[in-house]
Amino acid sequence: MKGRIPEGEREARMAWSRLTEPADQPATTLIRSLGAEAALHRAMSGRLSWTERLRPRLEVLDIDQDLAILRRIGARVLVPGDEEWPSGLEALEQPPHCLWVRGPEHLAQVCQRSASVVGARMATSYGQMVALDLGDGLAERGFAIVSGAAYGIDAAAHRGALASEGATVAVLAGGVERPYPQGNAELISRIARVGLVVSEMPPGSAPTKLRFLRRNRLIATLSKGTVVVEAGLRSGSLHTARLALEHHRPVGAVPGPVTSSVSAGCHELVRTRGAELVTDAAEAAELVGEVGRDLAPVKRGEVLDTDDLSEEEAAVLSALPYRKAVSVDDLVVRTTLEGRQVLGCLGRLSLRGLATRDGDRWKKHARGGPAARLGGAP
Amino acid sequence: MKGRIPEGEREARMAWSRLTEPADQPATTLIRSLGAEAALHRAMSGRLSWTERLRPRLEVLDIDQDLAILRRIGARVLVPGDEEWPSGLEALEQPPHCLWVRGPEHLAQVCQRSASVVGARMATSYGQMVALDLGDGLAERGFAIVSGAAYGIDAAAHRGALASEGATVAVLAGGVERPYPQGNAELISRIARVGLVVSEMPPGSAPTKLRFLRRNRLIATLSKGTVVVEAGLRSGSLHTARLALEHHRPVGAVPGPVTSSVSAGCHELVRTRGAELVTDAAEAAELVGEVGRDLAPVKRGEVLDTDDLSEEEAAVLSALPYRKAVSVDDLVVRTTLEGRQVLGCLGRLSLRGLATRDGDRWKKHARGGPAARLGGAP
Repeated sequence: MKGRIPEGEREARMAWSRLTEPADQPATTLIRSLGAEAALHRAMSGRLSWTERLRPRLEVLDIDQDLAILRRIGARVLVPGDEEWPSGLEALEQPPHCLWVRGPEHLAQVCQRSASVVGARMATSYGQMVALDLGDGLAERGFAIVSGAAYGIDAAAHRGALASEGATVAVLAGGVERPYPQGNAELISRIARVGLVVSEMPPGSAPTKLRFLRRNRLIATLSKGTVVVEAGLRSGSLHTARLALEHHRPVGAVPGPVTSSVSAGCHELVRTRGAELVTDAAEAAELVGEVGRDLAPVKRGEVLDTDDLSEEEAAVLSALPYRKAVSVDDLVVRTTLEGRQVLGCLGRLSLRGLATRDGDRWKKHARGGPAARLGGAP
Repeated sequence: MKGRIPEGEREARMAWSRLTEPADQPATTLIRSLGAEAALHRAMSGRLSWTERLRPRLEVLDIDQDLAILRRIGARVLVPGDEEWPSGLEALEQPPHCLWVRGPEHLAQVCQRSASVVGARMATSYGQMVALDLGDGLAERGFAIVSGAAYGIDAAAHRGALASEGATVAVLAGGVERPYPQGNAELISRIARVGLVVSEMPPGSAPTKLRFLRRNRLIATLSKGTVVVEAGLRSGSLHTARLALEHHRPVGAVPGPVTSSVSAGCHELVRTRGAELVTDAAEAAELVGEVGRDLAPVKRGEVLDTDDLSEEEAAVLSALPYRKAVSVDDLVVRTTLEGRQVLGCLGRLSLRGLATRDGDRWKKHARGGPAARLGGAP
């Protein structure tokens, strides 16, 4: 795992994840220019005035303890350069210093074909059902489901992926050994056993509001695209969707009743952010998948046996009564077609079982099937 | 009413509406080149072989009887050149020869600011409620509602317009004296009393499937834009929407649950036809109304008193516990801000009633209001 990574780099990045809150710009800049280990020595030297604010955390820093925790919770730490380091994070101005990871899947590989499915915690049963279907259907098509393990949509999306034994990645705002929310502890443990639980915060970290916000940039960039299932107008999922759009990831939104406040954010994404309207897993796969490979079928109605009638045949069929048969002359009046045209049409309609003869008069063939249904006025 | 119309033109066009089915191309071409009256004489002369198919109807043509019917049902006939002739129909390749009209409104005027609201007959109660709201809200904004008086969405849209005493136009596939469907007879009579009932078919004409299809081009072009509320994948409303798009009218579609088959057509319009997603009357008005005048407000969530916090203030607020107060030093550790920054933030948060002091320790000000709600993890 340590191939191209300089000696001490991993431990230094673990230290940085302890020292700073996510997306600390000065720390990011320092690490970029010196490398994580040299940057750490510089910060510890006290020669940089801005690092003063990190002093209290520096004083209690204990890498050996963190390495022991890692072993104890069966986690690993990924850093840039690792084969398992996901490529999507490079787009971030302030990438995580490292990722704390639990679970048997290979993060970089599963993210190669992945969708984040996110949404409201206060989801409706409709939204949860759609999220479950999306998670299931996308996983069936080989997509890993990335989400935040929150109540509502997130949990349903993870569960859908687990249901079809697909890969799923829970990105947490706190430490990976600390399931949050507590009510999803069992789900998160299961994801840690068969999928991946990921955080940029070290073990023991509480999930705070700011960490949730920063976490969203990981969800947005780890996955190839984001689908929002239900979201109020102030939902954190809209934040994730905007971040995904900023990083040139496709964003889909699932519609719902216009009377539902948790669909309002989805509708607004489509109306004002250019998100694509997505109604099922096939369409979500097309959105986040590969051009050509993941094309969704265009939805069409039932094909009826009257679909390929000529305009004249349709006119004659439309003019035929269900019950009281009419003469060819009547049909000429009704359709303004010529007599020989009407006769030709009647012959063809009769062969197709759509018209029936009654002496020298004609009526619709009443079958109760779709043809009979369609013949009448809509 | 007869200003610029040549003598006999109106009666000739009434005759043509008896002789042909809607959108009869040869008849349209003949009338275009000769004028309606000369064209009628030519057709009656028997010198044009194609007019043979009109012979049965020519033989029973009785203009005097139609004029008597007009008087009896209190209707009028509009022809191109009339002040009341709506301008939108000029876009049609095969415009109606004339329009049979009942009702006190001025057709050309109401169409100047109008929206068609159409959709499934087998609408859900959700769809009907939305159509009612759209009809109501658009009428309140001065739009006439054009629709087809069918069960379901159409009827709800008309009713919405009537509810706010707006103008509404029912475009029928059969004669204007012949309410169809029968179950909406009362609604259609009411529209004839206060709005407009319009058809290109003369009195006595039955609504046939083909006439319904042709009728849709009138709905699409009489109005300035079309909003589809619920539509199955084979719905006639999708036909109307496509015709509107072909004639460069804006088309909106109301979303619904992805599990509802009568929302599938709306979603498909947005996905593949470029229809705009529309969730309320304000958005529909923006779509079909005048640029600038009818702008819909962008939907935003509730504004909270934490919205304009600086990043540092938000970080400190996020790090403050609800119950057990913490020291400034604790907050430095939690936020990685400098001590003086933390103190400054606490002062400002305290002034805004978001933080509260407890000796030399601090915690969130628990109010149960939105600020308190937002401070915690989302």
